[in-house]
Amino acid sequence: MPSESHKSLPELDDVVRAYSIVKKHASRTPIHQSRSVNAILDSNLFLKCENFQKVGAFKFRGASNAVFSLTDEEARHGVTTHSSGNHAAALALAASMRGIPSYIVMPENAPSIKKKAVEGYGAKISLCPPTQKDREAMQAKIQEETGATFIHPYNNFKVICGQGTASLELLEEIPDLDIVIAPVGGGGLLSGTLTYVKGFNPSIKVYGAEPVNADDAFRSLRDKTIYPSVNPQTIADGLLTSLCNLTYEIISVKCDGILTVSEIGIVNAMRLIWERMKIIIEPSSAVPIAAIIEHSQHFKGKRVGVIISGGNVDLESLPFGKPY
Amino acid sequence: MPSESHKSLPELDDVVRAYSIVKKHASRTPIHQSRSVNAILDSNLFLKCENFQKVGAFKFRGASNAVFSLTDEEARHGVTTHSSGNHAAALALAASMRGIPSYIVMPENAPSIKKKAVEGYGAKISLCPPTQKDREAMQAKIQEETGATFIHPYNNFKVICGQGTASLELLEEIPDLDIVIAPVGGGGLLSGTLTYVKGFNPSIKVYGAEPVNADDAFRSLRDKTIYPSVNPQTIADGLLTSLCNLTYEIISVKCDGILTVSEIGIVNAMRLIWERMKIIIEPSSAVPIAAIIEHSQHFKGKRVGVIISGGNVDLESLPFGKPY
Repeated sequence: MPSESHKSLPELDDVVRAYSIVKKHASRTPIHQSRSVNAILDSNLFLKCENFQKVGAFKFRGASNAVFSLTDEEARHGVTTHSSGNHAAALALAASMRGIPSYIVMPENAPSIKKKAVEGYGAKISLCPPTQKDREAMQAKIQEETGATFIHPYNNFKVICGQGTASLELLEEIPDLDIVIAPVGGGGLLSGTLTYVKGFNPSIKVYGAEPVNADDAFRSLRDKTIYPSVNPQTIADGLLTSLCNLTYEIISVKCDGILTVSEIGIVNAMRLIWERMKIIIEPSSAVPIAAIIEHSQHFKGKRVGVIISGGNVDLESLPFGKPY
Repeated sequence: MPSESHKSLPELDDVVRAYSIVKKHASRTPIHQSRSVNAILDSNLFLKCENFQKVGAFKFRGASNAVFSLTDEEARHGVTTHSSGNHAAALALAASMRGIPSYIVMPENAPSIKKKAVEGYGAKISLCPPTQKDREAMQAKIQEETGATFIHPYNNFKVICGQGTASLELLEEIPDLDIVIAPVGGGGLLSGTLTYVKGFNPSIKVYGAEPVNADDAFRSLRDKTIYPSVNPQTIADGLLTSLCNLTYEIISVKCDGILTVSEIGIVNAMRLIWERMKIIIEPSSAVPIAAIIEHSQHFKGKRVGVIISGGNVDLESLPFGKPY
């Protein structure tokens, strides 16, 4: 029987298989709606609330699928990744749930609050100078010393299939959607979303949304080449990364379009959801909402699934209460 | 058959009867839990999320019970109240859902955002100078001119029974609680909570929580006299009012205690819930959480239902990101 990890692109069945693992460990998140938001946007939105997921973000789905798909022999050496964000926390938690070690490479200048959060989930953190070369050297050293399996934040078949399980749950409850929209940074969430949604019903349109200030995915697809994301300046701090080969290929084949949004649009969308729906969504999760507002021609009168990617915000530096 | 509105104190059956009305109009709100909050507080909390209720607060339960309990003859003259807060919005929405007029008396100096919100629900607003005498004169004039039924924000049998339906839903899902706690301002929510919970199982303890800076309920019960709330200075802007005869009587007979909390405790509790649970709760709703922290001896190891009263906050003036 061929290992599914050797297939080039994941398919619906791979997400279904991932779900048989993920559902044992992740929370089934609720779908929220708001009459007043729907009235304002003239659309019928269904928010899949991954802000209520473990570690506060969809990342736990991919991480738990990757960790619990390892053989016992692989697993006992642990897992490793480089990340200063939600993937690190998610991988650390999934590893601790399986009872195996996790080794996270972080830049020396990562905020101490993020280091503490990842340590709190039981990870061993290795700090390195904040350059790609140092990071890769540190990562290689750890893998050599520990034999840990490297779990890329998004350019990983198992991770992508895990992220797709949010759409599986969404469509299980609301199958008759016209559109699904998700934010795109490195493309793991969008790739998983495309894999499941297009497999479920290819007539459902799927859009990615990204800040115009970090529009590497938009330009990469337009020019058919992967552009790196160079020093992007955006409040959507979960969308700073660029596509890799696997996410580029899935998105370029299956996605109906990347919609870019303004920074002020992101802040206003975030405020709208906080005020009207009383849920805390992080700026990256406000990007698809901003896209529905700024590209309303695609969404008017439509039934739209929105993957709310997470709710991890720094309450001490919110973009409210001052000019933005 | 005697009208239940002539009984002195409401009982469990009155809340059950209210629920047959309220459930047709109000949202059934979810109950949220958090492992990390439970670990921090060493308690097992069940948050009944009335921040997700229509108009963003439990007030819609009482208002809808009052409005839909009117006879057609009473109803056609409309309803009226004085309030600048959630009760006004709730009454206006309930009236508009029944297709009858609502007349809201507000002080001239009420924030324009609140006037707009209430107008947005279809109410006719009458402004008056911000004194009790002017307010009562305006209220009397409106009742005389329109024949509208006055619906007090909390000293009203139907309103109290409506507020109790939050506890009915809570105990339907989680019957085996040790404690239920709710904030207390005028006492409508706490009275409804006591009526249902003590009727359901008198061994469940029920506490009220209020800011030490607005501790009129605590003092009123201690001294067996109703103290007015005189110019209280607290961030919990939903708890500025004082008990009235009906709420005082219910609370003094049935409540296991009023727990007071510090202002900094309220802010820290609000931050804890926002950060860990990704839901927006207003300062008044953080008061019971602060009580669980500041009076932990009552709550350690217990299963505690917490009525989260609402989620209406001004995002432009949050108590985060600056010294408080």
